[in-house]
Amino acid sequence: MEGLFITLEGPEGAGKSTQIELLNSYLTKKGYQVVQTREPGGTTVGDRIREILLDNNLNNLEPKTELLLYCASRAQHILEVIKPALLEGKIVLCDRFSDATLAYQGYGRKIDIELIQQINRLSTAGLKPDLTFILDIDSEEGLHRAKGLDKDGFELGIGDRIENEKLEFHKRVRSGYLDLAKMEDRFEVIDANHSVDDIFKVLVQKLEERLVENEDSK
Amino acid sequence: MEGLFITLEGPEGAGKSTQIELLNSYLTKKGYQVVQTREPGGTTVGDRIREILLDNNLNNLEPKTELLLYCASRAQHILEVIKPALLEGKIVLCDRFSDATLAYQGYGRKIDIELIQQINRLSTAGLKPDLTFILDIDSEEGLHRAKGLDKDGFELGIGDRIENEKLEFHKRVRSGYLDLAKMEDRFEVIDANHSVDDIFKVLVQKLEERLVENEDSK
Repeated sequence: MEGLFITLEGPEGAGKSTQIELLNSYLTKKGYQVVQTREPGGTTVGDRIREILLDNNLNNLEPKTELLLYCASRAQHILEVIKPALLEGKIVLCDRFSDATLAYQGYGRKIDIELIQQINRLSTAGLKPDLTFILDIDSEEGLHRAKGLDKDGFELGIGDRIENEKLEFHKRVRSGYLDLAKMEDRFEVIDANHSVDDIFKVLVQKLEERLVENEDSK
Repeated sequence: MEGLFITLEGPEGAGKSTQIELLNSYLTKKGYQVVQTREPGGTTVGDRIREILLDNNLNNLEPKTELLLYCASRAQHILEVIKPALLEGKIVLCDRFSDATLAYQGYGRKIDIELIQQINRLSTAGLKPDLTFILDIDSEEGLHRAKGLDKDGFELGIGDRIENEKLEFHKRVRSGYLDLAKMEDRFEVIDANHSVDDIFKVLVQKLEERLVENEDSK
């Protein structure tokens, strides 16, 4: 495929949403055609699935059901949004993708990794990102940010079903991401314990290196 | 497991819903503890998934997404409803189960059968019905009944997303069920081109044979 598929991953509160917006502006200004999207969701069907996945009232959602729902949303997303954009030579920026399933359902929920890889392959038909940024942050700090606690620790907002998981769960997710990062060259781990601007600078630097490599390989 | 797991399958309009109600009354009167349920659905999460699957407005649902959604609903259904009931020694009567996924997504949508079997195994953790009735009906007649056409062929109601598939699709589903029936002993094919009472008589006769076998094998 001609385009470039870039995903942003990381634990809750690492600042993915902010950075993906900045990346989108940056790349658009440079003249690239950019499609920004997210998982779960990114399509009408996917958004309906997302509502189920993040619904705090569904507190007995089985890990296997959750896994299959994420993969259902992804299958639709790839066929309806990601693949067509890549075939048109666009840059696709996606907030979470199949690595999230390995980190959250595999390391977090402790579903067998081999089984997740099998179902990931099925739902993605083998599509992998060209470049994956993992915004890494300490789990306490990340949850603090994600759930919108003020500086004295009072909750400003109510987290969604995933954010409201126990700290131990989020710690497993983080270490999952760090494990995954060792397995393939497409990963770039970015320390997200910094200001938005500082994180973005590192991100752009890494991205530019990859864009050059990508051009050279053509 | 101690209970008995009975599923009703068949193309649209074969009369499953009516027969399962009759079966439930019959077995309950005989003193059995019966749990009647259906797929997709059967749980709060499953009903939310069912809404997506049968929504006529979602006309671009990808076959793979559909497959994964049915399996997500099933995984939840088994863990929350079916397995607990069987462990308590109850008879579970289920309107559609994994054979429907093979018939509709495999034969109907032409998704690779091997792939469906793989994901069926994953979502069911190997659970299979003890007895499966396939109510077999000619596809034109079945659709006619399901969509509520009057005797002159005028539509009385609007079918759901699956009922509204083309006739060819429904013919493949029917022949899929008949193929499946040849593969395992648990299947009983019942000719559903008869009156409700006549179908029910055959069904009860077959069921009684199986109940005796089941008692004998204990």
